[in-house]
Formats: sequence, C-alpha cells, structure tokens
Amino acid sequence: MRCSVTRVPMASPSDVKTLRTYVDQAAIHPDEVIAVLGKTEGNGCVNDYTRGYAVRSVQDFFAGYIGEKARQISYVMSGGTEGILSPHLTVVSRNPGGDEARKYDRKSLAIGVAKTPEFLPEEIGRLNQVEQVAAAVNRAIHEAGITDHADVHFVQVKCPLLTTEQLQDASSRAVTVVTEDTYKSMGYSRGASALGVAIALEEIEAAGLEEKDICQDWEQYSSVASTSAGSELNYCEVIVFGNSYSSEGPFYIDHDVMKDSIDADALRKLIAKHEQDELVQVLAKAEADPTGYVRSRRHTMLNDSDINHTRHARAVVGGVLASVCGDPMIYVSGGAEHQGPAGGGPVAVIFKRGMK
Amino acid sequence: MRCSVTRVPMASPSDVKTLRTYVDQAAIHPDEVIAVLGKTEGNGCVNDYTRGYAVRSVQDFFAGYIGEKARQISYVMSGGTEGILSPHLTVVSRNPGGDEARKYDRKSLAIGVAKTPEFLPEEIGRLNQVEQVAAAVNRAIHEAGITDHADVHFVQVKCPLLTTEQLQDASSRAVTVVTEDTYKSMGYSRGASALGVAIALEEIEAAGLEEKDICQDWEQYSSVASTSAGSELNYCEVIVFGNSYSSEGPFYIDHDVMKDSIDADALRKLIAKHEQDELVQVLAKAEADPTGYVRSRRHTMLNDSDINHTRHARAVVGGVLASVCGDPMIYVSGGAEHQGPAGGGPVAVIFKRGMK
Amino acid sequence: MRCSVTRVPMASPSDVKTLRTYVDQAAIHPDEVIAVLGKTEGNGCVNDYTRGYAVRSVQDFFAGYIGEKARQISYVMSGGTEGILSPHLTVVSRNPGGDEARKYDRKSLAIGVAKTPEFLPEEIGRLNQVEQVAAAVNRAIHEAGITDHADVHFVQVKCPLLTTEQLQDASSRAVTVVTEDTYKSMGYSRGASALGVAIALEEIEAAGLEEKDICQDWEQYSSVASTSAGSELNYCEVIVFGNSYSSEGPFYIDHDVMKDSIDADALRKLIAKHEQDELVQVLAKAEADPTGYVRSRRHTMLNDSDINHTRHARAVVGGVLASVCGDPMIYVSGGAEHQGPAGGGPVAVIFKRGMK
Amino acid sequence: MRCSVTRVPMASPSDVKTLRTYVDQAAIHPDEVIAVLGKTEGNGCVNDYTRGYAVRSVQDFFAGYIGEKARQISYVMSGGTEGILSPHLTVVSRNPGGDEARKYDRKSLAIGVAKTPEFLPEEIGRLNQVEQVAAAVNRAIHEAGITDHADVHFVQVKCPLLTTEQLQDASSRAVTVVTEDTYKSMGYSRGASALGVAIALEEIEAAGLEEKDICQDWEQYSSVASTSAGSELNYCEVIVFGNSYSSEGPFYIDHDVMKDSIDADALRKLIAKHEQDELVQVLAKAEADPTGYVRSRRHTMLNDSDINHTRHARAVVGGVLASVCGDPMIYVSGGAEHQGPAGGGPVAVIFKRGMK
Repeated sequence: MRCSVTRVPMASPSDVKTLRTYVDQAAIHPDEVIAVLGKTEGNGCVNDYTRGYAVRSVQDFFAGYIGEKARQISYVMSGGTEGILSPHLTVVSRNPGGDEARKYDRKSLAIGVAKTPEFLPEEIGRLNQVEQVAAAVNRAIHEAGITDHADVHFVQVKCPLLTTEQLQDASSRAVTVVTEDTYKSMGYSRGASALGVAIALEEIEAAGLEEKDICQDWEQYSSVASTSAGSELNYCEVIVFGNSYSSEGPFYIDHDVMKDSIDADALRKLIAKHEQDELVQVLAKAEADPTGYVRSRRHTMLNDSDINHTRHARAVVGGVLASVCGDPMIYVSGGAEHQGPAGGGPVAVIFKRGMK
Repeated sequence: MRCSVTRVPMASPSDVKTLRTYVDQAAIHPDEVIAVLGKTEGNGCVNDYTRGYAVRSVQDFFAGYIGEKARQISYVMSGGTEGILSPHLTVVSRNPGGDEARKYDRKSLAIGVAKTPEFLPEEIGRLNQVEQVAAAVNRAIHEAGITDHADVHFVQVKCPLLTTEQLQDASSRAVTVVTEDTYKSMGYSRGASALGVAIALEEIEAAGLEEKDICQDWEQYSSVASTSAGSELNYCEVIVFGNSYSSEGPFYIDHDVMKDSIDADALRKLIAKHEQDELVQVLAKAEADPTGYVRSRRHTMLNDSDINHTRHARAVVGGVLASVCGDPMIYVSGGAEHQGPAGGGPVAVIFKRGMK
Repeated sequence: MRCSVTRVPMASPSDVKTLRTYVDQAAIHPDEVIAVLGKTEGNGCVNDYTRGYAVRSVQDFFAGYIGEKARQISYVMSGGTEGILSPHLTVVSRNPGGDEARKYDRKSLAIGVAKTPEFLPEEIGRLNQVEQVAAAVNRAIHEAGITDHADVHFVQVKCPLLTTEQLQDASSRAVTVVTEDTYKSMGYSRGASALGVAIALEEIEAAGLEEKDICQDWEQYSSVASTSAGSELNYCEVIVFGNSYSSEGPFYIDHDVMKDSIDADALRKLIAKHEQDELVQVLAKAEADPTGYVRSRRHTMLNDSDINHTRHARAVVGGVLASVCGDPMIYVSGGAEHQGPAGGGPVAVIFKRGMK
Repeated sequence: MRCSVTRVPMASPSDVKTLRTYVDQAAIHPDEVIAVLGKTEGNGCVNDYTRGYAVRSVQDFFAGYIGEKARQISYVMSGGTEGILSPHLTVVSRNPGGDEARKYDRKSLAIGVAKTPEFLPEEIGRLNQVEQVAAAVNRAIHEAGITDHADVHFVQVKCPLLTTEQLQDASSRAVTVVTEDTYKSMGYSRGASALGVAIALEEIEAAGLEEKDICQDWEQYSSVASTSAGSELNYCEVIVFGNSYSSEGPFYIDHDVMKDSIDADALRKLIAKHEQDELVQVLAKAEADPTGYVRSRRHTMLNDSDINHTRHARAVVGGVLASVCGDPMIYVSGGAEHQGPAGGGPVAVIFKRGMK
C-alpha cells in the first residue's frame, strides 16, 4: 500500500480548475483517491452550504473520470476560513499495491476509511453515536493495516447535526433530542464522535463513559480526534491517518497536542523533530476555551452574539499555526469538544521524507 | 520627567473595579495620568458604542479623584477583541518631575499628547486631516522632550469617522465627502491620520503627497503610526511614545514592523533584543492584506459580508502576537491603512529594565 | 393618580438632547418619572452594551434633577432596532395626586412597578424566578390601584441572563444552571418571567406548572407579558400597565394578541376599535416561530448562524406594525417565549383620548 | 404564446424534490421553461454561494430532461431570505403556440429574455453597463411581443459584481474600477442595470444621464426594474414581464411603487384592484432608505457593521408584504438603487384570472 496527500487551492466552493490541472499532470490519479478533506469559505456553522456545494463540485469532477465510484470517496468538508486560512482541498490517495501481506522495513503513511450507519435525530450527540463511531474507527484502522494504536495520529470524523427539519421530525414522533438548538447540536455531534475515537483508541474506557459526560466532562478526550459537523450527511464518515509497516512511500504522519489556542510550541516542536523532512500539510482543531479564559486572561468569544465562537477560534489557531509553518493553506477545523484538552486541540503534520 | 504604563483588565466596557484597586494601591496616581488606551469588546466598526461607554466610565472614575481635569486625559478606545484578545486599559502616566531642563544619562520612555481642531465632515479622510495630524504630532513630540525622530516608536491617533448624521449634514450644505459609506470612512480617516504621522516624522515628503494617494498608494506609509477611528469624537487625539534623555525611570519603548499578519518574527526579534528586560505591553496594528493574498495564498477576509475584514485581521494578529509573548492582554488595533506596509503593520513593545 | 407616557427619540445610546428639551419644556417632570423603557441600537443579545450605556446616560441625566432618586426609576432597555425600528425612550410618569382613595368615573392609565430580589445563577430560568416574578407582578398591580386582572394590558419585565462570569461562579460552587449557553439563557430567563406574569394574572395555574415546562410547553403563556433579558441587572424589574378607576387623565391602554409575526390585523383592529383617539405608543413582542414555519412556509431564522433569530423577528414585527400605525418609533422587543402563542406575541397600544 | 409562472418551495439551495414532483405531475414542462427566479437562503451579499449552488442544482435537474438546452434557461437567484421570507423558485414557462402573428382579444402575461455580452471589471457599474442592459431590455421586450412600454410591469436583471479576483485583474492591467469595495460594487452594478431599464422604457433620457449619476442621483429611476447582483456570472441576464395581445392564457401582471419600505398600501391597492383574481406571485425590491430616515424617524440600518443594510431591508419589506398577501413565499430582493424612489421600490403581482 502506498498513501499520499496533495493540497489543491480552490478559488471558490465550486472551483476545480487547479484540481483538473493536477489530474491532467498525473499528480493525482482519480481512481486512487479515497478521501477529500476540504476547507470551504462558509460560516462553518448550521447554514453553511459551501460544504455541500464543494462536495457536489468535487464529486461531479471525479465522476467525469471514474463514474459511480466517485460516490465511494469520503468527502469531509470543514467550513470556515476565518482570518488568513485559505480555501483548499487535501486529496488523500491510496494505491493498494500488489501484495497486501507485504511488510516494509519502516512505517509509512497508512489511511483507512469507514462509515457508520445513518442516525435518527434522537441518536445524535448520544451514546449510540459514540459507539457507532468507535466501531467505524476500528474498521478504518484495520483497513489501514495499522496494528498499534500509538501509530494512529489523526482521525477525522465528519458527523451530522440537527436541523430544524430533523427537530420537527423528532417532535412529530414524540422523541426527545439532545438539544433543540441547531448550532449547539453541532457541538454534541462533534463531542460524541470524538469520544467514539477515544474509546476505539483506548484513550478512555467505554465502561466509564456516561451519556451526561458528553460535552460536560472535558477530562475525557482523544488526542488525535478531529470531528466536524455538517448538514450534508446523516451518518459519520471516518478517516484514520497513521503509519504502518504495510505501507511504503515517502509520506508519514506525527502529532502533538496544543494545550491552548496560542500554543505555537506544539507545532514548532513537531517541525523541529522532523526538520530534515518537508511539511506537506498541517491538520488541527480549534476551540474557544470553555472557561472563558486563555492564559488567565478573559476572552470574549463565548459571549459574542454576532460571531460564533468557533469562527473566532479558527481565526486564532489558523493564524498561530500559519505563523509557525509559514503557510496559510492548512486544515484548521473548529469545535474541539473532547478533542484534546479543553481550550486546546490536536495538531498533526504529514511529512515527506528527505524533501527539504 | 518620568513616564510609565500600567495594564488594567476590564470585565466589561463599564468596569473600573481593578482600576480602583490599582489607584487604591497607589500603582496609578490619577493626577499623573495623561492618556488611557483601551481595547473594548465591541465590533470595532461604525456602531461600536463600547468605545464611548468605556470613555465615559473611565472619565467618570477619574473625575471622582481629579474633577474637571479628568477631561484633559486623552482617551483612545479601540474596539474589537476578536479571538483571544482580552479587554483592558493601558493607563499612561507622566510625572513632570522638578527640573524640566535636566538630562539623564540614558533615554527613557517619554510621552507627549496633542489634539487637532475639530473637523467638518468634508475634511475627514482628506489632506486637511493629514496636515492637522502632522502638526499635532509635532506638538506632542516637542511636549515629550524628544529631539530625534528615530526616538519615536509609536504614535497612536484616535480619529473620527463619518456617521449617517454627518453625511446628512454635508449633504444639506451641498458639500461632497470622501465616501458615503460609513464603514469605509473609518479607513479614510485612519489612512489620512497615518500619513500625517509619516509627514511629521519625515518618513514621506509632504510635497509628494496628493489627496488621491490616501488609501490608494500603499507605498507611502509610517512605520510607527497606529490610528483608530471612532464615532465618539470629531477631532484627532495624538499620543506619541518614544525615548528621551529628558526622561528617567525603568520604562522604554522599541518597535519593529510586521511584514504581514503572520510575521511572528518581528515581535520575536524585539523580545530577543531586549531579553534581559520585562515586556510590559505590546502595541500593534492589524489589517487584511489588500491584495487578497497572504504568502501567495488567497484569503477570504475582503469578500466576507458577514464579518468585516478588520475583525478577521485583529483575531489573526492578536493570536500570532500572543503566541509569541504568551499574553492575550495586548493592544492590537484594526485597520492599518498607511501604517506599515500593505498587509502588515507596526508592532511596538514597552519594556521595563531589569525586571525579568 | 395620573399616569402618562412620552416618547423621546435618541440619536445614540448616550443621547439625552431631546430628553433635555422635553424636560426644559415641562413635557416631562423628572420627579414624576417612575419608569423608562428604551429601544437601543445594539444586537439585543448577550454582548449588547448599548442597554447598560443608555441606562447610565439616562440615569445620570435624571440625577442632575432629582439626585439619588434617579436610582429608583425602573430602567428597562431592550436592545435591537433591526430594520426600520427607531431608537427611542418611552418615559413613564405618575403623579400621585392628592387623594389616593379617590375613584373616577372612568378608568385611565395606571402604572405600577416592583422588583424581585437578586437571583443566583442557578435560579435563573427556573421555578424560583417564576414565583418571584409572580409575586412582584402582584405587588405592582396593587401599587397601580388595579383591582381586576382584565384591566392589566401589558406587563414589562426586565430580567437577567447568564454570562460567562456567572457560569464560572456556578461551576466553582458545583451547582448546575439551566443552560451553559449564554445566548440561550436569555430565552430561559424571558420564559420564566413570562410564566410568572401568567401565574400572577391567573392565565395559567401555578399548581400545573413544572420546571421542565419552561421553554418547552408553549401552550402555557401570558397574553400581556413582555419580557426582555439583559446583562446589566441580576434581579427582575416589573412594570404593570393597565387601566384603573383610581387614575385620571387622557391616557388608557388596550391590547390584543398577534397570532404570528405577520398578523397585522391584531394592531389594525385595536386602532379601529379606538379610532377617535390618538395612538401614543405601540408595545409588542416578536419571535421566530419555533416550528420553523410561518403560514405553512419554511423560514430560515432558526438555522441562521450569522444573525440570531431574535434579530430577524424584531425586523419583521417592527416592519409589519409600523406599516399599520405609520410610525417606526415603536417598542418591539424580541424573544416571546411564553408571551402570546408560539410564533406570535402580545401587542398593546397606549391611546390618548380625543386627540385625533 | 402562453406564459405561466409556478412557485416551488425549496428545503435547501440544492433541493429539487418538489420541483421533481411538479414536473412529474406535468405542472411544469421542462422544455417550456425559459427562466427561473429563486430566493436562496444565503446572505445575499458578496460571499453568498447559495445562489450558484441553486443554479447548479436546478440546471442539473433540468438537464436530466432537456440536456444541453438547460443551459439556455435564464437563472436569476436572489440571495437573502431574512425574516419570514421562504426559499423558493419561481419557474417561468412559455409555450410559443402555433401562430406567432396571432393576436388575442385581451392582453395576457408575456415574457421575454435576453443577455448582455460579458463585462470587463472596469465596465461594471458604469455607462457601458447601462447601455448594454438597455439594449438587452429592448430585445427582451421585442421577444415578448410587447408593443407598448406601459405594458411592461417588471424587468428582472441579474448582474455581476466585482470580486477580489476581478479587482486584482483590473489592477494588473492598470485600469480603474468604479469601487475597490466588493460589497459596494453590488450596488453600482444594480444601479447601472436599473438605469439601463429606465432608458429602454424611456422613463429617463439617455442623453441626460452621466456616469457620475449612477448611485448618486436618486431622482432618476425605473418604476419596474428589479436588479440583483451575484458573483456567479459576468454579464447581465434580463427577463421582461408584461402583458401582450400576442399572449393568451389566464395569467397577467400589474405593478405599483412602494414609496418607502413600510408602504403596505401599494400592494393592498393592487390586490383590491384585481380582487376577483388569484394572486400567484409578488415580486418586489427592498432597500434601506439612503437618507437614514423612514417617515422622519432615524433608522440604524446604514450604520450597522454587523448586518448589511440590504439584509435589514429584505426582512422589513418581506414582512410587510407577507402581512398583506398572507404568504411568506414571495420574491423580495434587496438593493433598490434606481429601482423606484429612494427608500422605496417597485412591487409587481402576477395574477391568475377568475381563480379566486
């Protein structure tokens, strides 16, 4: 197996011009693409249709090459390019190679994908979602040929949210949902997904988790989960990024944890640790510290009724990480419930060996 | 002369509780206060009333100690604490000392203040404003006892904007204004003020400046100007920060220029250069790069009709600088027209000798 | 007793110029003022400081005439002048007259005010708040000399919300609050206050109300409650407007209920019913229909992450009512939880006899 | 010729479920569709991608029936469903019939469409755009078989705006554009388009119009123009709605002019005038009064830096018109520069004879 990632700038949510150039130049092979992570320029909240628009544009593009198989690609669009963040795609490819059982003498980037079943509105943000995500993560780890949890460095989950229509549906069936607030449902769905990752990776114990802990007990978290909610799906997409002896090629991944939103050292240390290699992409999560303070100073993100706090947080973390790596075209997604410590979040880097 | 600055956290635009504590503890002497710079938690744009509310609260507070003299203090409130920025006051004090003519053996922080006359709506954002600001800067430099332009490291100007009421007034007198757009008028007023600073400091030539260059020719700029527009005044307040042999005490100031909004090195170098001294306050300007690109990557700040670009820019620069100095309670003001190079801006640091 | 209301336009949250003119002209007597209702131009949500700024400005103004007694006036500022709504004050005055026991031959405008004790964060949005408001409403009704609940036509309550600081306080004392979401706490506080009015007026039965009904069971509501949340107080202010034989003078009040946000007929009928009299002020509540539909058509207010739904709702109801009465300077407040039927709300009109 | 319009609710910008039902039920014949007007749920400003997403979704839908001919349909999506406005499509169909020269004994709805050539950035908002739109309107009138300008009741123009990319292009070619502000360019483009309509219909004289009058001299306007700017095209689409003896069928159109945004009487009179007929669709324009006042009361729309004034204005006019016709699924588009008098705008109604 041979995995790679390629970043592709977008001029708008429907722009595939550079993507086409890359395919024409054989930098991307449509039949090898297994996932596409995107940063799109909407508000990243409930009514962000740039995510669905980008999925449609990119899927239609690949359908021109591989037909119906374009539907099997995992599309994970994260809305919100506040501040200097630059809209783009991260195209993830996997060439299965000839001999699946073959082991190489060093670990390289290995990627697996999986989906959960569809959720009913009343299941979103609850233990059922946690469990289904945990199961999907395990399937994706297996598919990636990863045998040690320590080799998993980033798990991206795209999860659903509750729209007004779904709230109506639940209400008509007299079932209760985790929240009646559409924006807030994004947090519960992200939180439940992240806890699913933590359970699959044995970062926390399934037995110790209660439903009321979701979005409440911030001590329970995953250091590698990155979850993103959107209205364009009603199941979860899971993409596991790790290193494996079953994979070859120049790419590999490593991660660290930002302890708060201005913790530039997390990324600086990762880059220093692999200074001989080229940084290919940064993947990180951002959130407003739920205490209302960063380094003992009051912040105003949680009380701001004009700009949602996830938007503030992406602007900050995007700026901080770009100031370290020198590139604003990175993947920073908002809402880090149970993803890293409260107020902080995971940061992963994909490197290419000996390219610098 | 002996100048000092003290940072005071605010819990809201009307909060003076910590300020009172500091005065009670004699950390601040009301009769020595000459200026108050504040970061308040409004939108930093046209309808940001947190600036006026904070001015009123702080002025009323000082009036309780020094009566009518509280009106002579320069109040410069900059709205917008996006991201991790923390609302606070920077209280600037000056003790004239006994002998005005005395020279010390090293330069210390020296501060001067001045005001322009009031402006008519049609003068805002035009050459008249440029000239009046230049004259006021010269008066403030003189007052500060600074004799060399190279010793001026930060010039804060609070300037007016055009409100709908003023546009009506201009229209009723059949005079034209620089723009009919209230938000846009903030940029013109900031730009004209910055060019006034540049002329006073001979960074550019008065003779070479035409009215049409304002907010157009970004090659003409000041490396130490920081200008901020608000609807709570219709003249300009100028505060000059520099170093002078006429001043004594532990404080001094230095500056550098951020070449773009993620240029963390500018502040890192300043801190390294003065590593033995304590960082007391960071003063910086932020703006969305007018080219639409940062480090060759497209940003979306200028096309965002939900969040004004000055808000995005403050979130980014605030995060980047706080990640370097470790403190979110810093002064980052938005809209850097003619303040540093396009997309970048000045950053100044006030240090206290031998305190670290 | 003789009660009157006077509308005063404001040019900004701190503007008292017209108010001063009215006092100078003896149209308003500061020593008779018992309440001031204001519409201020903030976002009407959590971080709207225009409310506190206006309270301070108006209170300081009256203090210039009546000193400490200015603190006893009830100030109820409602933020949000979306669309055509025009910032203004409604100054409510009461002259006690000579003989309190005297009865007139017709009912006239009678106004009573009362306050609840201060609330702890954990009491907000819960039964305790309901009960305290009910008790305060009864006190205010008594003070107004109103003997029949049918004579109560509008009950304005200003209530607190949960800020991040209060959430911290509750958390530090290990008590749970009704919601961790500051914006959402406004709804709970408004809802509990409105149910308190409904209980006081026997529109619903106290015995039948459970804590979980608050912001859940929309069948329980008051037809005359108008409640408004703000961060500038931590108790509730109650102002009862009704008609009483104990009052004299040309003013009286009547009300109807808007069944949804475009129900222009409610106001049209009120005006027609009293066509010989002058309309002095309209007082109404606005909310986004919680079903997500208005007249069977989907609306997008509840899914909008850029503009809070209370802001949309005020713009609509303000426009609809102004199109009927021809005047945009009316009091329309957002968030009508348990105030009129779901999606609708009360509308009251103060008239002046024979002035048209 | 036989023209008809059908309204189709949308559950999201990509929803074509109801559209499919209508086509399945033969209520809409894809090969007869000549134009689709939509209200989509974005911000209606620069970065509103719901317009392009809806165009793509609807065009792809029709392509499934009529292939490449789906591209010839005029798609005019207007963003912004503030307040109670409900997202939907207005599908406009035309059956050419057998004998083009045939005249009927009464006038019926007649629709014509036309496009301008593509514009360079420097042509947008200038006289060139005015002239090209005027020429296109004349072609569309001719196509509709309308012989008298008084029979034209609504002219919808979809026009381009200046994006950051286009500003870059202009800058790189050293040409100046009408404004460097992307949001503001929408107003210039709408204004120039409306003046093009006014010239074609001889409401104003081409000879009397100077470039500086665009978005300046509000006395020059069209009473039937409705123009809408978006980033998804760089030419203008024109759709003329009128009545003609060359058309048959039950539909016809009439119009009036709202003198300000709360002028409910304009629509009330139209409905009363045709009370025996069914109201099929309302088409109207909304804008914030540029004087800053509505009925002598100050409004705050133009000074609001959180919500663009076009959004406020749509919420108001949508609410006012829906309160008259009882239906929130109407077409209200924002930004009425040179479309009706300043602060007001045209309102047209399509009726169906004898259906009520």
